[in-house]
Amino acid sequence: MNNGQRVILITGGTGFAGSHLVEALLKKGYSNIHVTSFGGSAGMVGSLLQPELVHQLDLSDQEKTLALIEQLHPDHIYHLAALASVGNSFDNAKQTIINNVDLQLNLLEAVRKFTPTARVLIVGSAMEYDLHATQAAAGQPIDEHQPLGPVSPYAVSKVAQDLLGLAYFYSYQIPVVRVRPFNHIGERQSPDFAVARFAQQIAAIEQGKQTELKVGNLEAIRDFTDVKDMVKAYILLMEQGIAGEVYNVGSGEGFLMKDILDQMIKLSSAQIKVVTDQSQFRPLDIPYTVTDNRKIRTLGWKPEIPLNLSLERILNYWRQQS
Amino acid sequence: MNNGQRVILITGGTGFAGSHLVEALLKKGYSNIHVTSFGGSAGMVGSLLQPELVHQLDLSDQEKTLALIEQLHPDHIYHLAALASVGNSFDNAKQTIINNVDLQLNLLEAVRKFTPTARVLIVGSAMEYDLHATQAAAGQPIDEHQPLGPVSPYAVSKVAQDLLGLAYFYSYQIPVVRVRPFNHIGERQSPDFAVARFAQQIAAIEQGKQTELKVGNLEAIRDFTDVKDMVKAYILLMEQGIAGEVYNVGSGEGFLMKDILDQMIKLSSAQIKVVTDQSQFRPLDIPYTVTDNRKIRTLGWKPEIPLNLSLERILNYWRQQS
Repeated sequence: MNNGQRVILITGGTGFAGSHLVEALLKKGYSNIHVTSFGGSAGMVGSLLQPELVHQLDLSDQEKTLALIEQLHPDHIYHLAALASVGNSFDNAKQTIINNVDLQLNLLEAVRKFTPTARVLIVGSAMEYDLHATQAAAGQPIDEHQPLGPVSPYAVSKVAQDLLGLAYFYSYQIPVVRVRPFNHIGERQSPDFAVARFAQQIAAIEQGKQTELKVGNLEAIRDFTDVKDMVKAYILLMEQGIAGEVYNVGSGEGFLMKDILDQMIKLSSAQIKVVTDQSQFRPLDIPYTVTDNRKIRTLGWKPEIPLNLSLERILNYWRQQS
Repeated sequence: MNNGQRVILITGGTGFAGSHLVEALLKKGYSNIHVTSFGGSAGMVGSLLQPELVHQLDLSDQEKTLALIEQLHPDHIYHLAALASVGNSFDNAKQTIINNVDLQLNLLEAVRKFTPTARVLIVGSAMEYDLHATQAAAGQPIDEHQPLGPVSPYAVSKVAQDLLGLAYFYSYQIPVVRVRPFNHIGERQSPDFAVARFAQQIAAIEQGKQTELKVGNLEAIRDFTDVKDMVKAYILLMEQGIAGEVYNVGSGEGFLMKDILDQMIKLSSAQIKVVTDQSQFRPLDIPYTVTDNRKIRTLGWKPEIPLNLSLERILNYWRQQS
């Protein structure tokens, strides 16, 4: 079967990573790409795919999820749909966890019933790891053997999704591959995330709509990967990842948030005053998160887009939005 | 504060482990012991505690859970309430996970709001570990550093409960101690579990109510601990366990299920014919589960009741039930 013949389904396919994934799959010759979208327009994905390939679906609706999988019999399922904001999940602990588990279970049950040989990529998170008690606490990159110990309810939901995938692989031999992406950035990311929030504010300041740039904790060290590199890893894992296995994906480089902000400010000619906003701090933030990406590199992946190009693209994107 | 002054709350306190825990706490001089019970009589706990200490409560009711914690302001909370059957959880994947996560979140949120210095013991499971990819697969006892990788939805729910406890410890400094009990047995255990099911059937055969003893997989190796020893570990962990830490509890001895059955049959004078019942097999059973209990032993715990005495007591219990 060639790429064009395969039936692809991307849940949450009109969202941030989803939209970049659709672009990347089209470039690789996949054409039979279905996406689910929940409560909103298909955005730029609407201009890439025929309307009949965009399915309005709330995956927490079990009956409709079963019906879609029965109808499509997908060969590859990228499961990206989830409530995604870490910052908010402390206020919505229950909704985040129950929702993400619910979607995951509905999808896996539908796969088990109608298309049990489909490969399923489950998107977890770097935040599944116990970043206090591991290599991370010692300033070392984090490999896949580090213990799990999520700090936020969001991260707990990602552990549950991830391990449900493993459980269905063990129990029903569904070829699930799990990925734990580290921070990734790009156009169309929600300003709930720091780099997008910085860019949005810089663009607003340039256009005289805002006077100060409000920031949260700038002392954290994060591993930023361009979303376009990230979705290439997702495709590679779908095509070549070992079923049942889990892979970290990230650039492997740590950047201080303060330095990222400085780089972005230098990309602007505006005078920018930075002020601290306590409301942007989390109950407990993790100081250091950098990937040990040797496992995914053995499959041939590496990050290709330098950070400064990503930041410039993101800033230009927000300038066009303002 | 002495034991008698402390306010104790046991969720699921009228169940199997809960009822033994109430007995053990009373013996240790605790008297202000509240239990929650859901949908059923308080059973033998009704004869141990005054009626006003037994609270009919479905912990999935968030408002009522908040109200109870506000009313009691417990010092020690043993969280035992959960949908517990592993065998059934493949058919009820969603209910098991959503329910157990829901109860856990309602309880932790209520603690955070009304009694954030309460010590909370969260009861996980040996089945949280990846028993395929660890020491267990090599026939070695399992310590707390082994990777998580639950096979059943039930076990996924236990990982979620366990890690939610850790998340609330990290984020809100709630003194949560986590325990991963290995198999434990005793009076009042549901016949959903193998030893109770064997005993129930032997008693029925002795009384001429049944002709054959139906069994599932007898090749599994399990680490059995008397429930009375197990609940002593729970109390020790509540009193002395380090907040945020996790402890395995089990005898540290592996027994082949077939040998357990043989020992039980020898305790009976009846002629017992054993037949295999395919419906008692799980989609994927774990061959070997034995505890490395060195961490809990450092606190002074050890198993005290020999297996043959436990089996005899259990058999006598079922003879009285039949």
